[in-house]
Amino acid sequence: MKTYPECIPCMFEQLLRSARLADLTEEKTFDVIRSFSKQLAYSSFSLSPPEIAVQLYREIKRLSKNDDPFRAVKRENINKALALFDEMRKLIAESADKLDFALRVAAVGNIVDFGALKSFEISREMLDNLEINKLHWEIDELREDLRKSSVLLIIGDNAGEAVFDRALIEAITRLYSIEKVYFAVRGAPVINDVTFDDATYAGVNNVAEIITTGSDVPGIVLNECSGQFVELFRTADVVISKGQGNFETLHGCERKVYFLLKVKCGVVAKITNAGIGDILLFSNKNFLE
Amino acid sequence: MKTYPECIPCMFEQLLRSARLADLTEEKTFDVIRSFSKQLAYSSFSLSPPEIAVQLYREIKRLSKNDDPFRAVKRENINKALALFDEMRKLIAESADKLDFALRVAAVGNIVDFGALKSFEISREMLDNLEINKLHWEIDELREDLRKSSVLLIIGDNAGEAVFDRALIEAITRLYSIEKVYFAVRGAPVINDVTFDDATYAGVNNVAEIITTGSDVPGIVLNECSGQFVELFRTADVVISKGQGNFETLHGCERKVYFLLKVKCGVVAKITNAGIGDILLFSNKNFLE
Repeated sequence: MKTYPECIPCMFEQLLRSARLADLTEEKTFDVIRSFSKQLAYSSFSLSPPEIAVQLYREIKRLSKNDDPFRAVKRENINKALALFDEMRKLIAESADKLDFALRVAAVGNIVDFGALKSFEISREMLDNLEINKLHWEIDELREDLRKSSVLLIIGDNAGEAVFDRALIEAITRLYSIEKVYFAVRGAPVINDVTFDDATYAGVNNVAEIITTGSDVPGIVLNECSGQFVELFRTADVVISKGQGNFETLHGCERKVYFLLKVKCGVVAKITNAGIGDILLFSNKNFLE
Repeated sequence: MKTYPECIPCMFEQLLRSARLADLTEEKTFDVIRSFSKQLAYSSFSLSPPEIAVQLYREIKRLSKNDDPFRAVKRENINKALALFDEMRKLIAESADKLDFALRVAAVGNIVDFGALKSFEISREMLDNLEINKLHWEIDELREDLRKSSVLLIIGDNAGEAVFDRALIEAITRLYSIEKVYFAVRGAPVINDVTFDDATYAGVNNVAEIITTGSDVPGIVLNECSGQFVELFRTADVVISKGQGNFETLHGCERKVYFLLKVKCGVVAKITNAGIGDILLFSNKNFLE
């Protein structure tokens, strides 16, 4: 999707939250504001929000002299998610509809945003009562597609979320005769998004082959990704993309992609015809911006 | 006060709200975003927020080809406030502490922000229950100062609010032997701030001499104001400044100024040591940033 005017204040909010998490001084925060403003002044707003916002994350890395300023936050979130992992598994195993339940678990992972995983608990009641938007919960079509598939690609989002995705992958491989699962991560640290190290730390390597996109954009911009990733993206039988950043960059692509996400802002609510807070599972084939 | 990093997303929010009220197209809204970003990139953040934000309002005026894009909104708010005027007067007249009550009425005017005066009612109960911050309600000192004064200057804020200020001025001139009251307005239209025309339409001319600051900054930057205004500002016996914009630009000035405002953001809450939503009456003489 293109960038909407409403995305701009939101980018500056992200800038502040990120600068705070990266422990930047006020002076350096203003340096990021100045530098990002300069880029905005000459930006094409036909680019997606993650393609524009990546500049501010790069600048925060540069000024914090830290290639991964959110490492500690990410590790903390992964640790907290790992503490819930056995419970997730158990809840899925005891469910009548295991795929539905595993998708709910993975959606809960997307609810957890950076710095937000505090005293979090996971329970059947909470998962049963998720704000699933029934009009955008295309699980029957996904079931059909998984039945015919041998290669599945999951595109990860936040670091802590990867633990929840691991539970989903485990469930899918038990339910369907998938031969190979790939889990795509960012090519370099950006905000709290999942990297190769994070995914490994989250144990995703036990259930999938972790591959990087080759890009530090917090989304999937195909012409910035590695040839290896693009090839896999094109040839996988089913692609499931997690979170808003991947949706914002990817929904216009040619191939069929399932998006599993929580709607976190008014712009995405508007273009998906859903409400803020809704949890959606839908493919771009049934979706027109 | 200087500009804080937290002020930047807020300025872009104001930009969007203002562009919407001025009926700018998305394309022109992006033009304002680009142009304001360019200015931000080279701004000194030791300037106050209104001094920086004035650029975006100027740009909106330029691109909407309308010197007063908020005229209709302002007139609507003034009309709604005028419909409440007799009730305000009555409530003040029937109060035990008329100055306190008139200040509450004027504070309520400041609560009403642009586009916000919808189905608004005014009542004794509501005014008695205002979220006054008792630690910052320096009414006894103001009483003392008014008793010794012959020239009073009120610095206006929003257009609709001027009707409420008119009720305050009327009450003060009945209670104290003030010889002359001035009501200062912006030198040119900016957002929904009160101008000479708006103040006259609100009937402020019946209780005070309306003078302009000579500047279109939505606050008081003395070296941008007319010599006439600066002279009056320096020599008035008591100055009462309404709203956050005037506070942000004025609190560091040498002379004693009373600020009557509702705290509308975290930054002003922090530097006034109050809570968001609190209503304050305090002078810069008892205040240290």
